[in-house]
Amino acid sequence: MTELRKDPIVGRWVIISTERGRRPQDFPREKAVRQEGFCPLCPGSERMTPPEIMVYPNPHPGGDGGWTLRVVPNKFPALRIEGDLGKAGEGIYDKMNGIGAHEVVIETERHDLDIFDLPEERVADVLRAYRERTVDLMNDERFKSVLIFKNQGAAAGASLAHSHSQVIALPIVPKRVMEELTGCQDYMRFRDRCLFCDIIVQEMEQKDRIVEESGEFLAYCPYAPRFPFETWIVPKRHQCSYEMIEEDQIRSLGAIFRRTLRKLNMALENPPFNYIVHSAPFRSGTTDFYHWHIEIMPKLTKVAGFEWGSGFYINPTPPEESARFLRELPG
Amino acid sequence: MTELRKDPIVGRWVIISTERGRRPQDFPREKAVRQEGFCPLCPGSERMTPPEIMVYPNPHPGGDGGWTLRVVPNKFPALRIEGDLGKAGEGIYDKMNGIGAHEVVIETERHDLDIFDLPEERVADVLRAYRERTVDLMNDERFKSVLIFKNQGAAAGASLAHSHSQVIALPIVPKRVMEELTGCQDYMRFRDRCLFCDIIVQEMEQKDRIVEESGEFLAYCPYAPRFPFETWIVPKRHQCSYEMIEEDQIRSLGAIFRRTLRKLNMALENPPFNYIVHSAPFRSGTTDFYHWHIEIMPKLTKVAGFEWGSGFYINPTPPEESARFLRELPG
Repeated sequence: MTELRKDPIVGRWVIISTERGRRPQDFPREKAVRQEGFCPLCPGSERMTPPEIMVYPNPHPGGDGGWTLRVVPNKFPALRIEGDLGKAGEGIYDKMNGIGAHEVVIETERHDLDIFDLPEERVADVLRAYRERTVDLMNDERFKSVLIFKNQGAAAGASLAHSHSQVIALPIVPKRVMEELTGCQDYMRFRDRCLFCDIIVQEMEQKDRIVEESGEFLAYCPYAPRFPFETWIVPKRHQCSYEMIEEDQIRSLGAIFRRTLRKLNMALENPPFNYIVHSAPFRSGTTDFYHWHIEIMPKLTKVAGFEWGSGFYINPTPPEESARFLRELPG
Repeated sequence: MTELRKDPIVGRWVIISTERGRRPQDFPREKAVRQEGFCPLCPGSERMTPPEIMVYPNPHPGGDGGWTLRVVPNKFPALRIEGDLGKAGEGIYDKMNGIGAHEVVIETERHDLDIFDLPEERVADVLRAYRERTVDLMNDERFKSVLIFKNQGAAAGASLAHSHSQVIALPIVPKRVMEELTGCQDYMRFRDRCLFCDIIVQEMEQKDRIVEESGEFLAYCPYAPRFPFETWIVPKRHQCSYEMIEEDQIRSLGAIFRRTLRKLNMALENPPFNYIVHSAPFRSGTTDFYHWHIEIMPKLTKVAGFEWGSGFYINPTPPEESARFLRELPG
């Protein structure tokens, strides 16, 4: 079905479908977002998804039997949950079975709302669901890390219009996560402090890259962003992994996350975007040097392939300018 | 104008425009490829580009005064050639001036032809121009590496339809290049052999990922590709940097490169694509462990942001299947 294969040059694991016999024409050029007509994520279509893993019932009067959030297995998973890892070599190459979890978080029962249209407490529900799923998945000893992310809009990779995000549990640590860990660990060795904690101090002093600030969180445009209007949200208190988030922080994050997404949506006029929760791998003992955060990347430009291939980014917008613009919006 | 800034977490340098005062609306959502009307790269428009750095005159009868290939400075360069690096810190962050070269290789005088429509000797001219520009740029002690790449089609980042590629000389080594060097150096330490030389041996034995083979070069789909139909071309003889390529190899590469691009174009029906020449940094002393190559990435899917942000790729096409399909095409 699928296989995890490791690039021997840069050490990057990728998921490869091993399904044979398809022709190049079978790959759609542009994924269409199904905006109209039947939606498999809407209330009434519950049987169109695999049985749900988690549900938040609708607490409102008249909402009996309904829900406001569901988590279901992805109907077309990139990885499957059953089986063993089957780690093996193939000459100089390394591979393992495509074992993992691939879940869909249906963020609202409303087909017509985006995540940032929801009230704060519902955005907090989405963040709560991320934590609950992470805590559950980390019990599986085969999994080393979890990726929580959202693709919003066809150009950002979404194939369904109904507001949703995805949770992928992996038997490996993705390369980008490893790089962050290494960078933060090097900094800790050099200065005996958490790099993100130092970034927070400097950003709060410099102020010119801050988008929003609350008691618990900072939303800012990073110093060396890859993309125009790239914005990160980071907890002010030191925490290495997302599942350590506490209930008061979830409520606080719901508010600042919603405001930040609303501002981006307003500034960029409904842009496609992705966000990704960056968190320490499971059971990695990285408590002191890593610091979880969320990276939000609006997808404004199309200059993809070169940056992909080279790891080299040209960003036409200084983050100080993005931040100033976002800061001045009402949210 | 522009600044090079280093992300302190993963150590990635990015080019940031420091121009202020633009609004979000000033960034086009979709770059349009100007197909019709005036073209600044066509014969007759030579004055529309900055003065040329290099030109191959038209050798054909009646081609007097004409050209078949020009290299000109980019009119809107991401980096500027004059000045010193001005390396400096900004608190915990690192930056330097946006010094570098940004050149455009106009691959043909013909507006209506793509690179793979040219005869073999003209494709070889393009490859020769890449070598000549690299050799010239490496004389500048400020530069550490060069990126040679092509964006074909608007979806791959091209802003002009006339067939061209780009050469960027950088005062830093891009992250992706550093990663490859580290991977190859680790392999050399472990096995005392060049990783790419070993890959070539295994691919020629396994055969199922080979697209084209000639005396000097191998075109194959890599074992762990990020994208459907990703194809790499590698010299069979050990060479660490592109500028070491010899005249007989250039002719041989012209033939296999053209055939491979033609096959991809045929299989995928005129896809947008990028290719990037991967070569050792200047004066890096990596003669033994690194091996230059060209990576060709058709851009078939739009699931960009997540992969960008996470470094984690899901590829729906096994490379054995891509290679089989391409191998069987006439080219």
